[in-house]
Amino acid sequence: MSVASSDQPIAIFDSGLGGLTVLKALAQKLVHENFIYLGDTARLPYGNKSISTIHRYVLQNLNYLNTLNVKAIIIACNSASTAFLQEPISSHVPIYNVIQPGALKASHICKNNKIGVIGTKATVKSKSYVKQLHLLNSNLEVFQQACPLFVPLAEEAWIDDPITNLVAYRYIQPLVTVGIDTLILGCTHYPVLRTAIRKVTGNGIELVDSAETMTEQIEADIRDHVVIPNLQHPTLRRIILQTTDDSDQSTQAAKMILGPVTFDELQHVDL
Amino acid sequence: MSVASSDQPIAIFDSGLGGLTVLKALAQKLVHENFIYLGDTARLPYGNKSISTIHRYVLQNLNYLNTLNVKAIIIACNSASTAFLQEPISSHVPIYNVIQPGALKASHICKNNKIGVIGTKATVKSKSYVKQLHLLNSNLEVFQQACPLFVPLAEEAWIDDPITNLVAYRYIQPLVTVGIDTLILGCTHYPVLRTAIRKVTGNGIELVDSAETMTEQIEADIRDHVVIPNLQHPTLRRIILQTTDDSDQSTQAAKMILGPVTFDELQHVDL
Repeated sequence: MSVASSDQPIAIFDSGLGGLTVLKALAQKLVHENFIYLGDTARLPYGNKSISTIHRYVLQNLNYLNTLNVKAIIIACNSASTAFLQEPISSHVPIYNVIQPGALKASHICKNNKIGVIGTKATVKSKSYVKQLHLLNSNLEVFQQACPLFVPLAEEAWIDDPITNLVAYRYIQPLVTVGIDTLILGCTHYPVLRTAIRKVTGNGIELVDSAETMTEQIEADIRDHVVIPNLQHPTLRRIILQTTDDSDQSTQAAKMILGPVTFDELQHVDL
Repeated sequence: MSVASSDQPIAIFDSGLGGLTVLKALAQKLVHENFIYLGDTARLPYGNKSISTIHRYVLQNLNYLNTLNVKAIIIACNSASTAFLQEPISSHVPIYNVIQPGALKASHICKNNKIGVIGTKATVKSKSYVKQLHLLNSNLEVFQQACPLFVPLAEEAWIDDPITNLVAYRYIQPLVTVGIDTLILGCTHYPVLRTAIRKVTGNGIELVDSAETMTEQIEADIRDHVVIPNLQHPTLRRIILQTTDDSDQSTQAAKMILGPVTFDELQHVDL
């Protein structure tokens, strides 16, 4: 039996750097794979823009990534995923969005049919998770809460902090009160605040993290050869970051989010 | 003596809706004047973008506003003002930026040569206020503090709130400790949080508010006929808002910020 191998990179894109939590999780699990990360930082955030504007940006980003000869594309941005789900874009490589795997996992582990979703204002307004969850199980009750302070708190790195605990309590306690047993962290920045969120939910509520569920999905698809694995030695792997704005703030922020995962290059691209 | 009058509108532009605090202050003082407000909401926020990208947007916005036959243009956005000050753009009508009037007022009222400046990360990083203040008085000591939580707190309308008070204390107490007697609110959103800021500063520190200082500047220039006044009856005046994104969130947000000031129309423009 011949062993197929492909050193084509897996592409991940987000409006900014929050999707690096997804890159981090993937890079730690899939140590043979090359990655290219595109942060559309010149146009971030997508969250407060109209769906038609976001869809135009997603199309541009997908077209660009396809020119880089990648073997899969992960949309690691909730707003971009929402726009994509409303009007899918065809592609010759598999395209993953960040909403479906999270919804699927939550529907599997929820026992009392009550699921909470926290996200940006735009994600909550779009009801993307609600729609996906109801496609999977129309009996689910879904309780949403927008948490607009969470991204700036994560960016301030006020992680183990009384202010963050108070904000988390205000946003999440109402979801605890209505009795959810599963909470979807519907924004790629939120895993950074997991400790503060856990203080409010206690251990009785399962947290569903997009970065983790996306990684499980990609791992399964590589195992099943939906995505051809790379069999190169891990020391050969390359991780390239690209941003659409030439702000020099990106390097430091990227290092903070990626932690132990190192990248080879940070490039500027015009889209 | 003939009495000149011009019903051309005064234009105000910002990356988003924060500059509506400037429109509000102006509209309440200059009750005869027509206004047009342009919020470049499709590309907001400018704050985390590079100066060259922001300068390109400013140029586009100024060119557009000049086609509307306005009699003055106010850049009510710190990041846009910074880009403009670094490389001024010529225009046949007066262009005002939000930084110079605030710096001028602060330099006049400061008695102990210690001035604090709070703003977005981008404003702090650009040192725009520091540079303007040092042009006015090289002996001034300027202490800056970025307050990235303030805009989302204002947008949440957590105004009289223990969380906002804690955040204000964390950001501003260090400025109180070093002994400033004047604090520039270097972001158009911050006047909304004046109560929480005042709790930290007490009454011994003067607050300089961009919206107020800009209004004083325009009032003076209208009095001096640098800008030709409008002598129409106040009931005839029109206020038009334009945004570059067609998100329907704008109407509600605009009403919240403008309070008693009503606008005639909210239009969508493509730039």
